[in-house]
Amino acid sequence: MGYNLLKGKKGIIFGALNEQSIAWKVAERAHEEGAELVLTNTPMALRLGELNQLAEKTNSLLVPADATSVSDLQNLFDKAMEHCGGQIDFVLHSIGMSPNVRKKLPYDDINYDFFSKTLDISALSFHKMIQVAKQKDAIREWGSIVALSYIAAQRTLFEYNDMADAKAILESIARSFGYIYGREKHVRINTISQSPTPTTAGQGVKGFGALMDFTERMSPLGNATADECADYAITLFSDLTRIVTMQNLFNDGGFSSMGMSSRAMMQYNKSLECKECKENPLNNPDEF
Amino acid sequence: MGYNLLKGKKGIIFGALNEQSIAWKVAERAHEEGAELVLTNTPMALRLGELNQLAEKTNSLLVPADATSVSDLQNLFDKAMEHCGGQIDFVLHSIGMSPNVRKKLPYDDINYDFFSKTLDISALSFHKMIQVAKQKDAIREWGSIVALSYIAAQRTLFEYNDMADAKAILESIARSFGYIYGREKHVRINTISQSPTPTTAGQGVKGFGALMDFTERMSPLGNATADECADYAITLFSDLTRIVTMQNLFNDGGFSSMGMSSRAMMQYNKSLECKECKENPLNNPDEF
Amino acid sequence: MGYNLLKGKKGIIFGALNEQSIAWKVAERAHEEGAELVLTNTPMALRLGELNQLAEKTNSLLVPADATSVSDLQNLFDKAMEHCGGQIDFVLHSIGMSPNVRKKLPYDDINYDFFSKTLDISALSFHKMIQVAKQKDAIREWGSIVALSYIAAQRTLFEYNDMADAKAILESIARSFGYIYGREKHVRINTISQSPTPTTAGQGVKGFGALMDFTERMSPLGNATADECADYAITLFSDLTRIVTMQNLFNDGGFSSMGMSSRAMMQYNKSLECKECKENPLNNPDEF
Amino acid sequence: MGYNLLKGKKGIIFGALNEQSIAWKVAERAHEEGAELVLTNTPMALRLGELNQLAEKTNSLLVPADATSVSDLQNLFDKAMEHCGGQIDFVLHSIGMSPNVRKKLPYDDINYDFFSKTLDISALSFHKMIQVAKQKDAIREWGSIVALSYIAAQRTLFEYNDMADAKAILESIARSFGYIYGREKHVRINTISQSPTPTTAGQGVKGFGALMDFTERMSPLGNATADECADYAITLFSDLTRIVTMQNLFNDGGFSSMGMSSRAMMQYNKSLECKECKENPLNNPDEF
Repeated sequence: MGYNLLKGKKGIIFGALNEQSIAWKVAERAHEEGAELVLTNTPMALRLGELNQLAEKTNSLLVPADATSVSDLQNLFDKAMEHCGGQIDFVLHSIGMSPNVRKKLPYDDINYDFFSKTLDISALSFHKMIQVAKQKDAIREWGSIVALSYIAAQRTLFEYNDMADAKAILESIARSFGYIYGREKHVRINTISQSPTPTTAGQGVKGFGALMDFTERMSPLGNATADECADYAITLFSDLTRIVTMQNLFNDGGFSSMGMSSRAMMQYNKSLECKECKENPLNNPDEF
Repeated sequence: MGYNLLKGKKGIIFGALNEQSIAWKVAERAHEEGAELVLTNTPMALRLGELNQLAEKTNSLLVPADATSVSDLQNLFDKAMEHCGGQIDFVLHSIGMSPNVRKKLPYDDINYDFFSKTLDISALSFHKMIQVAKQKDAIREWGSIVALSYIAAQRTLFEYNDMADAKAILESIARSFGYIYGREKHVRINTISQSPTPTTAGQGVKGFGALMDFTERMSPLGNATADECADYAITLFSDLTRIVTMQNLFNDGGFSSMGMSSRAMMQYNKSLECKECKENPLNNPDEF
Repeated sequence: MGYNLLKGKKGIIFGALNEQSIAWKVAERAHEEGAELVLTNTPMALRLGELNQLAEKTNSLLVPADATSVSDLQNLFDKAMEHCGGQIDFVLHSIGMSPNVRKKLPYDDINYDFFSKTLDISALSFHKMIQVAKQKDAIREWGSIVALSYIAAQRTLFEYNDMADAKAILESIARSFGYIYGREKHVRINTISQSPTPTTAGQGVKGFGALMDFTERMSPLGNATADECADYAITLFSDLTRIVTMQNLFNDGGFSSMGMSSRAMMQYNKSLECKECKENPLNNPDEF
Repeated sequence: MGYNLLKGKKGIIFGALNEQSIAWKVAERAHEEGAELVLTNTPMALRLGELNQLAEKTNSLLVPADATSVSDLQNLFDKAMEHCGGQIDFVLHSIGMSPNVRKKLPYDDINYDFFSKTLDISALSFHKMIQVAKQKDAIREWGSIVALSYIAAQRTLFEYNDMADAKAILESIARSFGYIYGREKHVRINTISQSPTPTTAGQGVKGFGALMDFTERMSPLGNATADECADYAITLFSDLTRIVTMQNLFNDGGFSSMGMSSRAMMQYNKSLECKECKENPLNNPDEF
């Protein structure tokens, strides 16, 4: 089925929940490409999700771990190295959550304990995972670490709230640690900035459907699916990208380089020209 | 009226045509701030436009010059230095034209002589103007050179055609020459990336009205007007920004840092939800 | 002395400590330009520094406040508005500190409580200050908020540690809140990314002298001084930049747009060609 | 040897000259990965170089073509499609030359006919090749086009001259045409921004050795070799990156995200501290 791009490689996948998860797709594709995997998520996610199935299907070890807990991460890497009989070749970080978004606290009335939690779960967990790995010398020379990001790190999207700030620091950690881990062990660290994707996490955001319609029409190749993200991640885990590091790589059908497409503009223009729209006031005027 | 920010300074303004021109507004504001000016445009633009009035109003010297002609530029700088009794403090480049856009040749059926002309008029003219000025030692130490650019240099907009490529090279020239002129004479070179502005030049572009509506709703402070651009240019000509160079500076109400605003999304959403729109096929389906 | 650019405006300056501080220079220049000021720093900084002198010299109110404390910030804005007889026009945030840097904990053996503290002091304090200001409606329409940043937000510098991540999130907060505060009150929020500057804060960083030599030779206009940063900040507080928002603006003599200068390369080349250098092993080989 | 990543795919490689050429390495790797190739370069390059050997080794068709000539390009695509029995899957553009650099004309005393030639050879040739391909419908749906670029497009390097501007417009063309070709035929267009590489082309640039030493020490993974560039190009031609378009992708060991590394700083610091260096004036003081 695959190309054997990851044959003989061992990897850890953080953050798969169910079939919609990007991490789920990455695990499936990595397995197809010949990798041996360890899957992990929080104990709660393990109860809510269907990670057991994925572990069975891909013949992977499943280790519960809260990625904000250094001791959980230590245990995870110990188990993983034991299971794999040595060092790990690649790691995927696909973790993000904002209590402020969940509780619908607007960005200008944010709760600061929640803000710190958003950062801890969505970004500092990435640092912790790398620091633990490095201290245990758990990643093989020329290994590859990837985290999933979003264009909100560069450009503000309404309702994305403190997750934008979390993605900004996530990408910064990739650079900061990419320098250290690169110079010492040739381990590369990158982020993939993925199109909005209808995962369980994504769907919670208000106005998500209209946003996806817009980005679909803006992007010459359309929105990237979770499957396409998995394909891209495979290249970054493979030996073909050994010298690419400290980069934020857009997998988005071209959206990030678009100012305005003909298709999106025509659709938008309808709202300006049709009579019904003109008569129709904007739905939530208090939200401006 | 002003702050005397440019008191005692002398400047050359390229590209004013009529009252809508950004260059026109810059000239007015620079005059208010105490600068002595030399205005220039092509002989044809002088016939079509109303530059005489501006020269009178601001008590400026008017020198016709085709900015793609090195000899015209040499003559211009000679005249300007003679008129000003010495070196020039600041220069504005506000010039852009694409024969491909004018002739409605699409980007995938471009005429290459026209492409070269687009680049020569809209970008290489900037290099020529600076090279001539430097060879004549026409700019005072710590002088300031500014060109007007547009976000198409970074992100593709439908119908903007080869002007996008011209703006990309314009910004590159600002960097390349900013290094040379900076290290040798402390002259700084920057570009202002301005919101879409309803000037004579801007209005020619198809779909310009809908685009301006969109960028207005996307930008938290709205589109920047020509007057606001002039204010910004004044700060870049003043002594308060002496160490800012080789930068592309967005004067756009925040547009460049927006992914999606609530206002733009709501307007767009109307086109997805209203019945009339749904029944209405896109206007020009062959343009996709 | 000045241009009256801030005549009638009221501002709050966070983070001045002594004469080397950028915030100190900004306060002096804002005063010269006609602004009425409120100065603030932590109680400890007030004891260690010489802020009293600055307050006297600029005829400013001095209010102690820990910028990580919402209640301190609330008290500060209350006092400031009372003192100024109404709303504030501009705010400067010049605050940064990393316990990990202070304790010389390397980036791959970071303390996570310290990491959170770095972020809280250097970045979340910016959000808190803005949120408090907005909830009190303390900033006038078209007001201006500026924070000081550093290129470490985009590019990794050895020894800069978690301050790089803090600057990345600081710039993200400027964008995220710039959108909200812009659309609702036309308040603009930007960051200035300043050259390395020999302030009390800057000097603590190891290898700072050699770095400043390098950036001086790389930058066509040399490193920007604290005085030049103050001049630039004045333009951003003035009415001439009303439509510039959500931007990170480099005040760095061109450094950010340089790949390699002739001067820096020649200096570097000496180390490759001179006999003494060749014989001399690198000083700290264990640091690579 | 390979993964069969390009099995059944047909590609055209522009710009291989000899074994050092990146394009040469890409051709070798693409062949290993199962692709069928057409090689092309100017008639003069065919005489000077050893392209015949490569054609033999990779069992490729060799078609002379001047990439600035539309008719040559038309002939090339006709021949290629005939040879391949249909549409092409991928194209590599690895072409760049500046007469101003060759003639050692400095950037502030440039010849404008040469400047236009630099742009025509190094950048407009990319547009021509794509326009010809599109008009002949020569690229298969979801095909991939890649050009080689350099960080000079974003940051100025001494002596790189008008090649910097050429790379800026090259990357802009990738975006502009990436939008058009993407929306209509799902063809993606990207550029790889490669480390300085000791090819025949690269070696001509003055100070190249010292620059490579510097970038080697700055980059946590070291400079990317031509072989590593070829590996990366393979991923971009493969089906695993189908939704990545309009991007400039750094293959540079992390250089583009570095501000200053410990290793480079220590080497630089030697030149500041050793006695011999201090006594030694800079070699070419007139070059500053």
